[in-house]
Amino acid sequence: MSFLYKANPVRGAEWGRHFAALAPDIPFSLWPGDGDPKDVRWLATWVPPEDIAGTFPNLELVFSVGAGVDQFDLTKIPAHVPLVRMLEPNIAESMVEYVCLAVLALHRDLPLFFAQQRQEVWKEFQITTAARRRVGVMGLGQLGQAALERLKAFGFPLAGWNRSPRAIPGIEVFAGVEALPAFLARTDILVCLLPLIDETRGILNARLFAQLPDGAMLVNVGRGGHLVQEALIAALDSGKLAAAMLDVADPEPLPAGHPLWRHDKVILTPHVASMTHPETAVRFVLDTIARHRRGEPLPGLVDRSRGY
Amino acid sequence: MSFLYKANPVRGAEWGRHFAALAPDIPFSLWPGDGDPKDVRWLATWVPPEDIAGTFPNLELVFSVGAGVDQFDLTKIPAHVPLVRMLEPNIAESMVEYVCLAVLALHRDLPLFFAQQRQEVWKEFQITTAARRRVGVMGLGQLGQAALERLKAFGFPLAGWNRSPRAIPGIEVFAGVEALPAFLARTDILVCLLPLIDETRGILNARLFAQLPDGAMLVNVGRGGHLVQEALIAALDSGKLAAAMLDVADPEPLPAGHPLWRHDKVILTPHVASMTHPETAVRFVLDTIARHRRGEPLPGLVDRSRGY
Repeated sequence: MSFLYKANPVRGAEWGRHFAALAPDIPFSLWPGDGDPKDVRWLATWVPPEDIAGTFPNLELVFSVGAGVDQFDLTKIPAHVPLVRMLEPNIAESMVEYVCLAVLALHRDLPLFFAQQRQEVWKEFQITTAARRRVGVMGLGQLGQAALERLKAFGFPLAGWNRSPRAIPGIEVFAGVEALPAFLARTDILVCLLPLIDETRGILNARLFAQLPDGAMLVNVGRGGHLVQEALIAALDSGKLAAAMLDVADPEPLPAGHPLWRHDKVILTPHVASMTHPETAVRFVLDTIARHRRGEPLPGLVDRSRGY
Repeated sequence: MSFLYKANPVRGAEWGRHFAALAPDIPFSLWPGDGDPKDVRWLATWVPPEDIAGTFPNLELVFSVGAGVDQFDLTKIPAHVPLVRMLEPNIAESMVEYVCLAVLALHRDLPLFFAQQRQEVWKEFQITTAARRRVGVMGLGQLGQAALERLKAFGFPLAGWNRSPRAIPGIEVFAGVEALPAFLARTDILVCLLPLIDETRGILNARLFAQLPDGAMLVNVGRGGHLVQEALIAALDSGKLAAAMLDVADPEPLPAGHPLWRHDKVILTPHVASMTHPETAVRFVLDTIARHRRGEPLPGLVDRSRGY
């Protein structure tokens, strides 16, 4: 009856300390593990091991250490073993902070002022009020809803788009592919918080950008695979889009010399919008194990037919 | 009975349009004016004209077009003519946006990621939670209070410092010079929103920085004159301070070649945190004129004994 962790070992050591404090009865080890693989009941991983079914015949639960599961080959996880996405609260809170930072940075022309700083130029620009800056969030899961809620206080006209319908108080929701054009037409700052699945891969492309108002701006905090990077560069260069703030890229790490690094209208951060916080992650994992033992519904359970 | 505007002529033309719409009975002109100076009852200005008393003998009110009056020589304005600071609501809202942007940018290590972007380096850093990032605002006037209120939702431990006592629900307030060391000792991100007067000139100096925790960060949205720029550079270079975001400088515009432009730990914006918005400014001015005619108290009235 042991727990195996297979991801960043520095953070894994922190997981171990919290396991020892919160669940001293559960043996915890870092990959590749120090006991019999048959004893492994729970696995937390970023990239799952090969032959997960053969190696760990008694597995009861698999946790993604991140909020997404796009890095998993879902067919490799036995159908009877639930796969759970990380829903610990610090992931959402960090993402909300980053989305607010990115929306405010684009709203207040920070990419322009960075470019001026590099050129040592002091030149002001007129402020656009939040009331005239329509923000739209794609992906209305836990993170998207939390981000919209925090943005309310700033007075931006807010809307969200989701593949399936959602009701969110105070937010205009557009649902389904047929509603996407209307959502894009009213969105000056577009925030991508979608899961990466077949239907959303490459969704941020030239055809989508063409449906945004001229001078619109993009925040990508989904995955690098959502964005066709060449299309973004072309849209920025043509002036169709005014600026972008990206926390994800394809590939990661983005190699030195890539044109996104040095584009004047792009702010790039190295996939730091949100990170799993070891203490709250361990609490989430232990709570999920307890729910599973009691046969209760599991928050974060991945629906393999949807892919997230 | 005319209104004279002496500041940026492009924005002045917008003021003129709003005056024509909202108060067609009040003749409005841009500096140097097109009528008899004796007819000028109201003056809105950034830098006031020479010999204001001799030129405009029938002046009833002087408005600063900005939130501050540090650019005025208060002794040159006749004692019987009230001087009013601009309190139109868009100034506060823009400032709140900028302060939230700056606090989040420093909290989430944006100066570091900009430096990495220039070097084309993809390297993540661990996130510090807002609960462990203590934010302190110096100057608890309308702008400081509004900024603290908006920051509440992010979960930063908040405090404010003011020369005179203030009671703000949910905010720990430190008042007076004797409370400044305790305020600084608990502040990881320091926001300066003070008025610039003799007592606050150069207040952001080496002695103040030494009282902050190691690795603290600075947001200056007051005036360039609050900050001893050489002391900031020394504190950043020694590691005492980790980063700064500055919207004001001394002098403005900051000349090309100044070391602040190219400092890796500094984000500089060209005095754009907050701007007077012509329509709401004209509404504020007209409301103040009406209050003055009725003998009512004037919001924004400058107390010349305090200097703001």
